[in-house]
Amino acid sequence: MAQSVAIGIDLGGTNLKVAAVDGNGRIVAQHARPVNAERGPDVVVTDIAQVVGDTLSGLTLTRSNVVGVGVGTPGPLNISAGRVIKAANLPGWKDVPLRDLLADSLSLPVSLDNDGNAAAYGEYWAGAGRGTENLVMLTLGTGVGAGVILDGQFLHGYFDNAGELGHMIVETNGVQCSCGQRGCLEQYASAAGVARRVVAAIKNGEDCALTGQVESGLSIDASDVARCAGKSDAVCLRIWDEACLYLAIACINIQHAYNPARIVLGGGMSNAGSFLLERVKKFIQQHKWSLHDDIPDVALATLGYDAGVIGAAGLAWAAASRAATVREWKS
Amino acid sequence: MAQSVAIGIDLGGTNLKVAAVDGNGRIVAQHARPVNAERGPDVVVTDIAQVVGDTLSGLTLTRSNVVGVGVGTPGPLNISAGRVIKAANLPGWKDVPLRDLLADSLSLPVSLDNDGNAAAYGEYWAGAGRGTENLVMLTLGTGVGAGVILDGQFLHGYFDNAGELGHMIVETNGVQCSCGQRGCLEQYASAAGVARRVVAAIKNGEDCALTGQVESGLSIDASDVARCAGKSDAVCLRIWDEACLYLAIACINIQHAYNPARIVLGGGMSNAGSFLLERVKKFIQQHKWSLHDDIPDVALATLGYDAGVIGAAGLAWAAASRAATVREWKS
Repeated sequence: MAQSVAIGIDLGGTNLKVAAVDGNGRIVAQHARPVNAERGPDVVVTDIAQVVGDTLSGLTLTRSNVVGVGVGTPGPLNISAGRVIKAANLPGWKDVPLRDLLADSLSLPVSLDNDGNAAAYGEYWAGAGRGTENLVMLTLGTGVGAGVILDGQFLHGYFDNAGELGHMIVETNGVQCSCGQRGCLEQYASAAGVARRVVAAIKNGEDCALTGQVESGLSIDASDVARCAGKSDAVCLRIWDEACLYLAIACINIQHAYNPARIVLGGGMSNAGSFLLERVKKFIQQHKWSLHDDIPDVALATLGYDAGVIGAAGLAWAAASRAATVREWKS
Repeated sequence: MAQSVAIGIDLGGTNLKVAAVDGNGRIVAQHARPVNAERGPDVVVTDIAQVVGDTLSGLTLTRSNVVGVGVGTPGPLNISAGRVIKAANLPGWKDVPLRDLLADSLSLPVSLDNDGNAAAYGEYWAGAGRGTENLVMLTLGTGVGAGVILDGQFLHGYFDNAGELGHMIVETNGVQCSCGQRGCLEQYASAAGVARRVVAAIKNGEDCALTGQVESGLSIDASDVARCAGKSDAVCLRIWDEACLYLAIACINIQHAYNPARIVLGGGMSNAGSFLLERVKKFIQQHKWSLHDDIPDVALATLGYDAGVIGAAGLAWAAASRAATVREWKS
């Protein structure tokens, strides 16, 4: 008998990733392609259907072995209606009924949640969050995505926008953010934010190990900054440590807000491994309160860039499990 | 037939308040007395029993008309065990089984929660939170207490310390807080914090309308600061506006964390009415994001200093209702 899988879809502004994921959170097949977001939702839905077909084509599966589809997308969303209200990285998308468009196109049940929640669910189900029912994940990439799982349930909030922790203000009147606020966490602690701040320092006349690379027009990323910071380049180390400091402040505020058992750090920044984690922990120790020791365990993500597709598939597995329970209950 | 009541107890570091509250959240009798916290939990429990007796003595009630007892206390607590782990304002209290001590002493079922949650429940049930299931309340008093109610349930967190929003860090390396952190919201936006900052400015040589009062050894409070700020005293206005600014930052971060429908501001600071609320709203408008308009409604508390006892009684009413449901279900 062929094994069963769920389809996970990670729809970003640049890339579309699709994976078939078994009931233990393991990817058994995957495909990716660039997203034609500007061509509108209908083209994207057609593209998704094609990549889903490609992903399943190499597997010995019948349609009845596919328990369902989960999709993580940029938001804000209306979760209960399955609609994308708007998405900064999907230009022109406005109140798109993505869940139902996909369900019609694929003839499968579809679960929709935002990309931060999907990644958090991946780590919760099959990664660094295993063994706890209370987890907050920060995905430190282009921005800072986040997902909050309390007692095994997503915290969505009244308007479905809870857990927008990348836009927690950590510095009043700080760096301008594209969201309209100033001093958002993601300006300091996202992979793109860290690189941007080093470029700004160089353009401001500061000399650092990446000056040549920037002045010759080459892009830099957070791993370049981490590498140079590790070699004690003053500018990179200062900006890297500021990222770790603001992450520590965010972890403390997350502790006070939700009191989770674990905080998981993922995304591009987490590729630096202990050079990120140990510095964040050091700043937490320096800045945390002394009233009692309920500091959450801070850990690195373990699923890397697959957290989103695995988590999206996990949503479909969870929905299928709930549906089966309802069927058993009724029968 | 005599009406039924629940007993609400608001146990602070200084005062003990007890009220008999009807099923609509109205106080029908109340008594208060100073707390002998330093004489230990047993004396306090005896005192509470006496004040409960005093409160009920004027009412035509039989014991069967008292549906139960709710108590709000400083924390941290172990809610499920009904224990006070420690309390900054109750010196020497350590892992006290307050719920069971009170239940034994009063021979009534007792519900225990922290003071911030009790006040939030009061406003949720019978005050500014009526009509919403999603509310965050900040009590701006000696410190900043908080309570978070989402979908009609308290958010307690894994270690029972969720919603400690008075210790949200709003200024990295800011004013030292007694909790060991720096830059906590309560240093800037509690009633005591605002008064403390004005005293510090005067002692630092700044001249303001309250200089004489402070130099002659008289204490000042937040209402003095609000009054002088309202008359454009520069020092008081600066410190009042900083309080309002940091409250706005906190409201924005609360929005991103929980996405509630309403944020209620209570405690001593809220006595300033629109001079608090309108300034906080102005700063929210200046600092909020522009992605979409899910700003929670920010409102002033309406129960004043009774929010704690009314909310504590509300916890007892809710527990009695659950117990009745269970009894009906079983019968």
